[in-house]
Amino acid sequence: MERRIESIDFSESGILKIIEGMEKTAFNARRLSHAAKLWREMVEENHFIFLTLAGAMIPAGLRNVVAGLMERGFTNCLVTTGASIVHELIEALGVGHELGSENADDIKLANQEKNRIYDVFVSQKAFEEVENFLAPIISELEGNFSTPELMREVGKRVADEKSFLKVAYEKNIPVFCPTLHDSIFGLHLSVYRKKGLIIDFLKDVNQILDLCFQKLPLGVVIVGGGVPKNFTLQAMLLAEGFDSAIQITTDSPQWGGLSGATLSEAKSWCKLKEEAKEVTVYCDATIALPLLYAYLLDVFRE
Amino acid sequence: MERRIESIDFSESGILKIIEGMEKTAFNARRLSHAAKLWREMVEENHFIFLTLAGAMIPAGLRNVVAGLMERGFTNCLVTTGASIVHELIEALGVGHELGSENADDIKLANQEKNRIYDVFVSQKAFEEVENFLAPIISELEGNFSTPELMREVGKRVADEKSFLKVAYEKNIPVFCPTLHDSIFGLHLSVYRKKGLIIDFLKDVNQILDLCFQKLPLGVVIVGGGVPKNFTLQAMLLAEGFDSAIQITTDSPQWGGLSGATLSEAKSWCKLKEEAKEVTVYCDATIALPLLYAYLLDVFRE
Amino acid sequence: MERRIESIDFSESGILKIIEGMEKTAFNARRLSHAAKLWREMVEENHFIFLTLAGAMIPAGLRNVVAGLMERGFTNCLVTTGASIVHELIEALGVGHELGSENADDIKLANQEKNRIYDVFVSQKAFEEVENFLAPIISELEGNFSTPELMREVGKRVADEKSFLKVAYEKNIPVFCPTLHDSIFGLHLSVYRKKGLIIDFLKDVNQILDLCFQKLPLGVVIVGGGVPKNFTLQAMLLAEGFDSAIQITTDSPQWGGLSGATLSEAKSWCKLKEEAKEVTVYCDATIALPLLYAYLLDVFRE
Amino acid sequence: MERRIESIDFSESGILKIIEGMEKTAFNARRLSHAAKLWREMVEENHFIFLTLAGAMIPAGLRNVVAGLMERGFTNCLVTTGASIVHELIEALGVGHELGSENADDIKLANQEKNRIYDVFVSQKAFEEVENFLAPIISELEGNFSTPELMREVGKRVADEKSFLKVAYEKNIPVFCPTLHDSIFGLHLSVYRKKGLIIDFLKDVNQILDLCFQKLPLGVVIVGGGVPKNFTLQAMLLAEGFDSAIQITTDSPQWGGLSGATLSEAKSWCKLKEEAKEVTVYCDATIALPLLYAYLLDVFRE
Repeated sequence: MERRIESIDFSESGILKIIEGMEKTAFNARRLSHAAKLWREMVEENHFIFLTLAGAMIPAGLRNVVAGLMERGFTNCLVTTGASIVHELIEALGVGHELGSENADDIKLANQEKNRIYDVFVSQKAFEEVENFLAPIISELEGNFSTPELMREVGKRVADEKSFLKVAYEKNIPVFCPTLHDSIFGLHLSVYRKKGLIIDFLKDVNQILDLCFQKLPLGVVIVGGGVPKNFTLQAMLLAEGFDSAIQITTDSPQWGGLSGATLSEAKSWCKLKEEAKEVTVYCDATIALPLLYAYLLDVFRE
Repeated sequence: MERRIESIDFSESGILKIIEGMEKTAFNARRLSHAAKLWREMVEENHFIFLTLAGAMIPAGLRNVVAGLMERGFTNCLVTTGASIVHELIEALGVGHELGSENADDIKLANQEKNRIYDVFVSQKAFEEVENFLAPIISELEGNFSTPELMREVGKRVADEKSFLKVAYEKNIPVFCPTLHDSIFGLHLSVYRKKGLIIDFLKDVNQILDLCFQKLPLGVVIVGGGVPKNFTLQAMLLAEGFDSAIQITTDSPQWGGLSGATLSEAKSWCKLKEEAKEVTVYCDATIALPLLYAYLLDVFRE
Repeated sequence: MERRIESIDFSESGILKIIEGMEKTAFNARRLSHAAKLWREMVEENHFIFLTLAGAMIPAGLRNVVAGLMERGFTNCLVTTGASIVHELIEALGVGHELGSENADDIKLANQEKNRIYDVFVSQKAFEEVENFLAPIISELEGNFSTPELMREVGKRVADEKSFLKVAYEKNIPVFCPTLHDSIFGLHLSVYRKKGLIIDFLKDVNQILDLCFQKLPLGVVIVGGGVPKNFTLQAMLLAEGFDSAIQITTDSPQWGGLSGATLSEAKSWCKLKEEAKEVTVYCDATIALPLLYAYLLDVFRE
Repeated sequence: MERRIESIDFSESGILKIIEGMEKTAFNARRLSHAAKLWREMVEENHFIFLTLAGAMIPAGLRNVVAGLMERGFTNCLVTTGASIVHELIEALGVGHELGSENADDIKLANQEKNRIYDVFVSQKAFEEVENFLAPIISELEGNFSTPELMREVGKRVADEKSFLKVAYEKNIPVFCPTLHDSIFGLHLSVYRKKGLIIDFLKDVNQILDLCFQKLPLGVVIVGGGVPKNFTLQAMLLAEGFDSAIQITTDSPQWGGLSGATLSEAKSWCKLKEEAKEVTVYCDATIALPLLYAYLLDVFRE
């Protein structure tokens, strides 16, 4: 048999070999292996890589993965949620998130001024620190900003060199946040902005269109659906379609929503080119994303 | 035994009896029954009811449910996605969506200029009709609009009396669309708007805050997570918290994301009051939402 | 447009109209409508209908649905788990199950001798009643029994006319229980059986094969995967394949397991005929099964 | 903050460090890390470890993981499905499984005599080889066999030293197969057995009870629910309860079924001791199980 299922070779303990070994297995292990290989190709063939990031990945401890992907050129543009920005600031400002439990008593937590994100707790105080950091920035700014422009203003003022906002600023990587108003950052903006400050989300549309019109092979790594996925893919309704796409999701196609939709469906919309390489991994991204990142580190370690 | 599991009485065929009968069963049938009862109470006790609507519910045929909920006072405010607005316009303009199949060949569909949403097809032409309708409206508008303000301008110009945009306009029901730019409407806005038109999403924040500060019992019915859920709940970080909440979702808590998060988790954030009544139904909303609507119709039919 | 998505007509409140109305909507509402129509056809065209029942449907209150399906000829053979039999006996013996909560303290429950099945509690005492009922039957029996033969012995001795075991006995409907040993009934069998009693599960194989070789159109309604699904479908590896199949599941295809596998996959195995009609509804069966049953009642009510 | 979320340290590329690093992250990465640590403790503290294996793990390429877990003492007893045994024989007999695709045309596959298991194909010929291997064994055997006894007879006759059936035979590890009749092996048994051969599944109950009554700390690793999970846990209704338990599943608690039930629920039944350590990882086992195995290899590599 030419294409035979084969077991993983465990004689070497590195991530690289384990993930490569998954290629001849099945189900989501095979998909994970295909995703790893495809991401590697995207980097080797100089695709301009969008990373769309939904879900509570930053509270879950993945901020260094995001920063590392930027630093090493494994992603060239981030599209994320307002919440990701707020939680990154909580980390960058040194307050951080607490190892909690999904079985905690939520009423007690409320009384302790702790907010729960599944098994992570974040204190009310953390949001106050964010407010203290953001209020003067917001008050000071004037004019019409897209969110990547605003994120540069924020990244510039972040001291923590490990912050992906800082890394993005220094490496000139655009950070789109089309749902910035749908976050505590948005609440602060609505409270502290002066009359002259406009966050112009339609400008975001124009700026992501510019990126999608680049004469380069274009790739996308989609973590978890939501607006980051849709906002990035829909830009291709006007442009030519992505050349490569990886999706990590825990949602399922049969519910009919976009977060679980197959990348094949995206081809019917021409959001992906007909011949685009694509793979979806059905797995919690807290597991899949660090594995893919570790794989890329191994591959591109000189 | 006081609280004993009992089978549904099928001797009467109406929805009302079947759903009431589910109360003494278990799992999501019991949850569905609790949701029906809670929504009924919310209406009877004059809660101001937000409906948050994510996912492709309009392509799936639920526009009359949304319109009907508005007409009959079962919802007082809609928070939805840009896609819901675009697909509603496709229906209101008479083009409509096609019964398709999730097993279709996506490349062939692309060549036929049909876009797939799981088992629904929507033609390229439909989007052109939307463009023809929206372009003059967008070109004409000037000033700084929140999305509810913009939706009024649109609803006013919709001819179809069955459209929820028309109903909302006529009944003065605010329609928030915090991700309007994340849709084909958003693409049109970015192309056709004149210099003087600003869609000010931060104004949305202020306007939903005003609704959350009303001295009324406040309820929310959450269909499917996403920004509509978060945007509505987060307003309560500044206000007092919801008094009642129903959630219909196919997502699961254990992935850590907001769309699958329990409403108990929302209590730790004080987005719901400590004593708020809440129930989550884990079910495809194309099934659960029409059942709940039919139940309410039965209850409030004089 | 020929095949256009249309909203449900809510002007009549019966289940029949609502479910028929779902046919022109989408996602799992459409699938539910197709399942209803297909089951109706199966009955009208005199298919011999297997019902495979996994999961805790009896603790969840669906025993009258199972009994009703048998009484009205909507199913002709039941394949279920040992647990379903045990929980049916708990109901038939008058002990019953308790409306509980999935948030209960499991250690406290253990101390109260209550066992939890998600949001249902069942007392230790209930199992003692089952033991008291079964012990003399088991002690008395001698010879080599298939599980349908054993279930007849049990059904014969059940007093409760509402019990599906009694109905099956009276209407001569075979009840297969290929995992009977995987239940408290099995524990009792292993303790109380005399030397001369053999439960010969291989005889079950022969008996289900006989049913699958009938010269009749053959249909199957699959609730929830597991051994009941596999045991029924695998018989067709030797026979001709099912002519019609309905599946209700909350599992998903992308995990690679049988419980979530599509019915199309079953065609590759020839477990379904090439031209067999089939539909899968992704929905909690506590919701979908009563709706389908109520629909059939409405259709076949004279 | 004492218990702070921390990012994984990627400076070392080994599986060990990555999985340990997940302990201070969240969601299922944290759970995976806890599972790894707990399995390690179970081995170090000489727990007698049951491995329950449902789902198509053998077609998916995990046979060497199962064999390796046995060889290295990471598991002491296997409880699995008939299908796992059949697919292991297909591998052991050298026919194997084919890398397929979940998008294949199932009718075409049927005509090519290929059976599909999601993205794996297995030829009709493979089952014929199994039949040729099993028919003489079955014909030859006489007497009353539990499935572990029968599996020893099979394992003894398997030539392939890599087969987990062979390893189990050589290391005297019991292999329970309480659903053996629910497989092609079962079909062969029903066809080829002589009058004097009884597969006595109730004897399985007694034999697993003996193992559960051992005066040893007892642990269980549950892969994927189904009968293997229930059969192993239910034995503890008569014994003292497990001391440690790991569960890997893609099912969810809110559907009410056993495969997705929490291990806390199992405590209400006293299937786990009150103080038992337990962790559930929500992840495709094709990813999670090789990672856990690689971790154990790393830990116990001298």
